[in-house]
Amino acid sequence: MKTERPDQYRILHEAALREYLAALPELATPLGGEPTSWTITEVGDGNLNLVFIVKGARGGVAVKQALPYVRLVGESWPLPLSRAHYEYLALAKQAQFAPGLVPALLHHNAALALNVMELLEPHLIMRKGLIAGIQYPRFVQDITTFMARTLFFTSDLAVSAAAKKEGVAAFAGNHALCKITEDLIFTDPYRVAEQNRWTQPWLDATAAAFREDLDLHVAISRLKLKFLNAPEALIHGDLHTGSIMVTDGATVVIDPEFAFYGPMGFDIGAVIANLLMAYLASAGHERIPAERQVFEAWVLETVENVWSEFARKFLALWRTQAGGDAYPRTLFEGEAGAARLEVERQAYMARLFQDTVGFSAAKIIRRILGLAHNIDFELIEDPKRRAICEARSLKLARVMMVEASSFPTIGAVTKAAREARDWQPDP
Amino acid sequence: MKTERPDQYRILHEAALREYLAALPELATPLGGEPTSWTITEVGDGNLNLVFIVKGARGGVAVKQALPYVRLVGESWPLPLSRAHYEYLALAKQAQFAPGLVPALLHHNAALALNVMELLEPHLIMRKGLIAGIQYPRFVQDITTFMARTLFFTSDLAVSAAAKKEGVAAFAGNHALCKITEDLIFTDPYRVAEQNRWTQPWLDATAAAFREDLDLHVAISRLKLKFLNAPEALIHGDLHTGSIMVTDGATVVIDPEFAFYGPMGFDIGAVIANLLMAYLASAGHERIPAERQVFEAWVLETVENVWSEFARKFLALWRTQAGGDAYPRTLFEGEAGAARLEVERQAYMARLFQDTVGFSAAKIIRRILGLAHNIDFELIEDPKRRAICEARSLKLARVMMVEASSFPTIGAVTKAAREARDWQPDP
Repeated sequence: MKTERPDQYRILHEAALREYLAALPELATPLGGEPTSWTITEVGDGNLNLVFIVKGARGGVAVKQALPYVRLVGESWPLPLSRAHYEYLALAKQAQFAPGLVPALLHHNAALALNVMELLEPHLIMRKGLIAGIQYPRFVQDITTFMARTLFFTSDLAVSAAAKKEGVAAFAGNHALCKITEDLIFTDPYRVAEQNRWTQPWLDATAAAFREDLDLHVAISRLKLKFLNAPEALIHGDLHTGSIMVTDGATVVIDPEFAFYGPMGFDIGAVIANLLMAYLASAGHERIPAERQVFEAWVLETVENVWSEFARKFLALWRTQAGGDAYPRTLFEGEAGAARLEVERQAYMARLFQDTVGFSAAKIIRRILGLAHNIDFELIEDPKRRAICEARSLKLARVMMVEASSFPTIGAVTKAAREARDWQPDP
Repeated sequence: MKTERPDQYRILHEAALREYLAALPELATPLGGEPTSWTITEVGDGNLNLVFIVKGARGGVAVKQALPYVRLVGESWPLPLSRAHYEYLALAKQAQFAPGLVPALLHHNAALALNVMELLEPHLIMRKGLIAGIQYPRFVQDITTFMARTLFFTSDLAVSAAAKKEGVAAFAGNHALCKITEDLIFTDPYRVAEQNRWTQPWLDATAAAFREDLDLHVAISRLKLKFLNAPEALIHGDLHTGSIMVTDGATVVIDPEFAFYGPMGFDIGAVIANLLMAYLASAGHERIPAERQVFEAWVLETVENVWSEFARKFLALWRTQAGGDAYPRTLFEGEAGAARLEVERQAYMARLFQDTVGFSAAKIIRRILGLAHNIDFELIEDPKRRAICEARSLKLARVMMVEASSFPTIGAVTKAAREARDWQPDP
């Protein structure tokens, strides 16, 4: 457990933050000019923290400070400041394995629960770009490198059991953030919970059906058990398109404060779920029919490539850099051994794909029936039109979760997504 | 990681131990009489530690001190003293959930890596009793209570995710002991390793075949991955019949220094494996044919009852004391929900049984082809006769590991054991 130091903690609003940064040459120098001339803007549109953009004569930085409660809800929902520590730890690990794909960390203050990072400009939150129908040609390449490397190099395929256990222990204290996921993703959308909301009245019947659907409840419970019980690798833990900043030529993954050792499929599933939602929300953003067809085709192609490129890179790392305690090389020697291990690698990836399909479904359902929604749907102004997009997503997600094994390939997922796009719910 | 304090550590041989105990009223008083009159006998027949039996006028204690190396091998194989700390932690947890089924802990000294426990008299190491053909009528009842309660109450079915993660972290530093298991059980028996030994020349061909058997290598690698990756509950980690002390009317589980959060099936499999070995070694201890038939029937009945009683008790706890974050009750409300959860409980137990079958096989193979053998076989003086018993055990274990799913019930396991008992290997 991280020791909290409430005595040293204070919330840094604009004036205090300016003073704080001015006193640190490693930040004041790159900002440049007089501290009084710096512009400081609070931009936190997330649910948890304060985020400031600070710009000086020479450059800019992003300052993220954890609050002792959930920002979205207020002081009635306390949340440990230690999440800033875990974000810092995760950023450091990710920078080691996926350099250039996470923001550079410039400063960390544990007592203030504060991290200062490079300012990403002109990057846009990917979710906003997808809503606008923008394609990102670098995305597949970058996100699959990020996932393949951060997951592989923190797994038992790459590290010793001792190092792995140390890693698991180092993140074990981040359980308050895990608990948010456990409740909001794996439990609440399937039961009556005060914080749930959905597009009423159109989704009332579906929400009620999901609360009664025992096949679904068994499936989500198995996924929750895996989330609780499978420290396969250091996962980002919140890898949706709002945690990814993009330009045409770059991709940067931010906000790993939910990081812990968990199931790999949770990260991969998050990316795929958010692309599927971008795809199924797209119809809601059309001004004239079919105007986003090329974009939508790109999104589905991206879904396919995210899995296939992730799998290709992960397997390549396993074949060449397996220094961990799992699948010891000495048990698979010679030509026959190498061939058999390769068959087992494919079987391992098939199991991981099943996890990915299930977690992906869980990430979709929570965004439509749970507390935290996403603007892919929320920005569709006509609620009935929004509800149709959401209903299609729920229909797809339900079958992915309950019948994950009927999706042996990513092609089966995109095929089902295409069918869901054409489905017209009862009015 | 536990901090080692080599500056305060010293090995307590007889004189120093006498002085140490005499200075502690909580031990000197129950021992009774003059310290000079106490008898102190070193009895450690395990592979790792010093164990002293101390007897005074009034009573006795058992003193266990970790050495900074593996006792069996010597200083060339260092091993952290912290294992005494983990044994102490595990004993405390086990005493909480299975009172009376572990020795009472009287004193713990972290710096000296020393634990003092009640002296168990007239208990016998169960393995020795089984070799002598003794039946233990209390065993099933006690060991299944021990396993059901220690596993259930440290699992996600009983505790919050936060408490579970704290538990996992508290034992994460015990990785050196886990590493022994990872190497000696999950790796070495399947490859050329200097420390491997087997009954030569009769098992030469089988040992060679196991080193080439890629189906087996995949199966053991998947079990190893589960051992590395599945903190389902606080497991004893070394639950063989040499870690169990028995009388006709009592059972006490000792030596939990390998404890960590791992797969439940590893503990259950250890008990079943050691009973299966007792069964298949029994023929080697016959003086006249069939003289141990009643005992052998009892052993197989015990195998069946260990699983079925464990499952019954574990399920009963789940039905009545499920306070953990897994399988939330609110997702299974009403009559239909209760019925569906019950079906899922049975499915959970079926998955756990598959793990148990596989781990059981792994525990058998390591005792015949690996470093640490057991006296069930070792005390069969005629090496050819011993090899026949071992070959039968290996034949059974191989099919249990590679085709675990062909053993849907514990009855299928005992049936295969009976067939193995009748199998005559090629001379």
